Amino acid sequence: MEINRERMWERFHKLADFGSVPGKPEEGITRYAFSPEYKEAAALLIQYMKEAEMTTWMDAAGNIFGRLEGKKKDAPCLMLGSHFDTVTKGGRFDGLAGIAAALEIVTCIRENEIMFEYPIEIAALANEEACQFKGGVMGSKAMAGVLPLDHAQKTFDEEGHCLYDAMVAFGANPKHLECAVRKKGSIMAFLELHIEQAALLEQKELPVGMVTWIAGIHQLLIRIHGTAAHAGAVPMEERRDAMAAAVEIAAEVERLSCSIGSATRGTVGYIHSRPGEHNIIAEFAEVPVDFREADPKIREKLFEIFCSRAQEICEKHHVSHEIKMTLDMPPVKCDRKILDIYEKMAETRKIPHMELISYAAHDSMVLAKLCPVAMLFVRSQKGLSHCPQEWTDLEDLAMGTEILLDTVCHLIQNGWEDCNDD
Amino acid sequence: MEINRERMWERFHKLADFGSVPGKPEEGITRYAFSPEYKEAAALLIQYMKEAEMTTWMDAAGNIFGRLEGKKKDAPCLMLGSHFDTVTKGGRFDGLAGIAAALEIVTCIRENEIMFEYPIEIAALANEEACQFKGGVMGSKAMAGVLPLDHAQKTFDEEGHCLYDAMVAFGANPKHLECAVRKKGSIMAFLELHIEQAALLEQKELPVGMVTWIAGIHQLLIRIHGTAAHAGAVPMEERRDAMAAAVEIAAEVERLSCSIGSATRGTVGYIHSRPGEHNIIAEFAEVPVDFREADPKIREKLFEIFCSRAQEICEKHHVSHEIKMTLDMPPVKCDRKILDIYEKMAETRKIPHMELISYAAHDSMVLAKLCPVAMLFVRSQKGLSHCPQEWTDLEDLAMGTEILLDTVCHLIQNGWEDCNDD
Repeated sequence: MEINRERMWERFHKLADFGSVPGKPEEGITRYAFSPEYKEAAALLIQYMKEAEMTTWMDAAGNIFGRLEGKKKDAPCLMLGSHFDTVTKGGRFDGLAGIAAALEIVTCIRENEIMFEYPIEIAALANEEACQFKGGVMGSKAMAGVLPLDHAQKTFDEEGHCLYDAMVAFGANPKHLECAVRKKGSIMAFLELHIEQAALLEQKELPVGMVTWIAGIHQLLIRIHGTAAHAGAVPMEERRDAMAAAVEIAAEVERLSCSIGSATRGTVGYIHSRPGEHNIIAEFAEVPVDFREADPKIREKLFEIFCSRAQEICEKHHVSHEIKMTLDMPPVKCDRKILDIYEKMAETRKIPHMELISYAAHDSMVLAKLCPVAMLFVRSQKGLSHCPQEWTDLEDLAMGTEILLDTVCHLIQNGWEDCNDD
Repeated sequence: MEINRERMWERFHKLADFGSVPGKPEEGITRYAFSPEYKEAAALLIQYMKEAEMTTWMDAAGNIFGRLEGKKKDAPCLMLGSHFDTVTKGGRFDGLAGIAAALEIVTCIRENEIMFEYPIEIAALANEEACQFKGGVMGSKAMAGVLPLDHAQKTFDEEGHCLYDAMVAFGANPKHLECAVRKKGSIMAFLELHIEQAALLEQKELPVGMVTWIAGIHQLLIRIHGTAAHAGAVPMEERRDAMAAAVEIAAEVERLSCSIGSATRGTVGYIHSRPGEHNIIAEFAEVPVDFREADPKIREKLFEIFCSRAQEICEKHHVSHEIKMTLDMPPVKCDRKILDIYEKMAETRKIPHMELISYAAHDSMVLAKLCPVAMLFVRSQKGLSHCPQEWTDLEDLAMGTEILLDTVCHLIQNGWEDCNDD
């Protein structure tokens, strides 16, 4: 069975155009969840789902679903999909590639009148990027039952608009987010195709990667409190310079990431300081830290060492500090049984591939609370992502989609039969 | 001869009130050069000068002068004063303390009908802080002939107002800044009383300090160019992380300042980065550096070592960088002959005192290009400055003023007679 590459590519770009600026590709795509552009894109997606004879609906959190029933009634469904929103001035592929692949797979299954046992669903997940209304992977969190039920009421964008109102305008039901929760056992697995957002596949000249682990993420916010003074006023040894502590802590993030003995990634993207003048010792500095590591033990060790180093540095500079954990996502292991099917299907089709670790977070991390997950990466040009230059060739997207198609067919026909236990 | 402490204090506060917010002392004083508040304050200052029978005028740069002639015609004048503007939400004492002291000294000399040889001038210098219209120590630069003649036309505030227009509205003559230049030899010396803006005198429990050196200042702006990417996208060893280089360079500022073997002060008050997101590797970072050091040799050595370390750090991080020198003020040595007179007068009056280095820049640094200078510091509570909490007790201000009065009397009566060569 073969997918229709041209149809997939055409539908993909029609959907991707929502949020673009006509004639200005350099502006990229801005399609915030629940925005007017997002609503228009959703309408077209639903139309495509209906063309594949899917039942469609929106859950309370604004996730959009399409479903085809299999022969077994009340059986767990196989779910395909990814997120439907973009960052500010983002690219066409991040998120949408996985939805376009899922759509093509279901369309293809329908077209070929394939018979199958287990229901199949497509999920277009809401507010993963969460650029306008903060609080990422919102849609999958709602499904997993880990989104606070008052999240929509309590979340405002920078202009003061409430997420609740935006969701109501979109047609969601933010008052009853509990209705979006999916039961454990109701989903057989969640399969997410996504662009790599890194350049490993390009470096290895491979179109497809099977994700073994999604690295855990620690995001910390370190707030440092010192005493402001004129740059000429205080001798070095008497200072309580919040910036001096902040830059040493930030340097420690890199040093530890490079020396912990793993492929850990550690990033400090900015430091904010007050008063923030070139000739005034800072009384306050804020350092956001982003650590990504797949090995749970190394991850914990790193966190401990870092916190104790931050403490030492602040003591040395006579400043006080607090560390706030803003995100703590443990690493997620992708399902070995599904990875084995991916690999078998890739080999059958002679599609070159490798296993790799995802250092970006994905909805799959959250949905792993509900069901087995397995991600499939397709090559991303230069690894660029979250920018207008983001690009994946149709050839690569198609090869990933083909592996996924074969895997889906296997699973909806056979369920977990023939699979070795993990 | 005794000053009238209460008169000085009352006049000081009347002048300081211009730029205050009635009933809101926590808002401090905002008296930008050439603003309406500044103009009103200038009118009162001129009135006080006239009451002391001074001839008054404004030069092309907006500096305000009062002058009393001595018996010698065409002799160099002894100049007293400081700057008349404040920072945003600054204090009452920075700058104005020196003008109030000068005013009281001349008033006292006039009142006591003291006869003297050399003319005496008070200078209320314009735009030293330069918070609205950038380009500090403007008034003294104009006097020293080092202010570009088109400075006023080319300088705009953040709202787009031109300095030229503000100066014209104030009554200055920005079209002919060359008229503000004072001839070398026309000023016998410039004596500036100023609050310490540091806490050394407070720590030593001394009311008055004689400044031996004004530390030189190197202000640098280091711009670092790397490559942006998602925090998960790029392994540590392949990154071109502008922030990683920036924080190491900033940490080096402190390390070098502490280890160079002098009381050097090194400050980084902020780091700006782009895109400045917590989960994106920065493509650009800007680090402003402020080094203050009195010893010319150590200052040069520090600058060289720092630049070469910045180079090494940027090479290690595979980022490019450029270093722009935004300020290069060599250290200024205060005149030993005047310091000796200060000390003699302090001893006569039994005023406790010490010698110290100023790590803040002052108009005296610029006027040193024209004539000998010598600064006198009065104790500043907790060393706080450039903030509403800035405070100096009348007692301390008065003791500084008394030393200055005696020194002035000596110099305008005797000139450089009796002084040992430096």
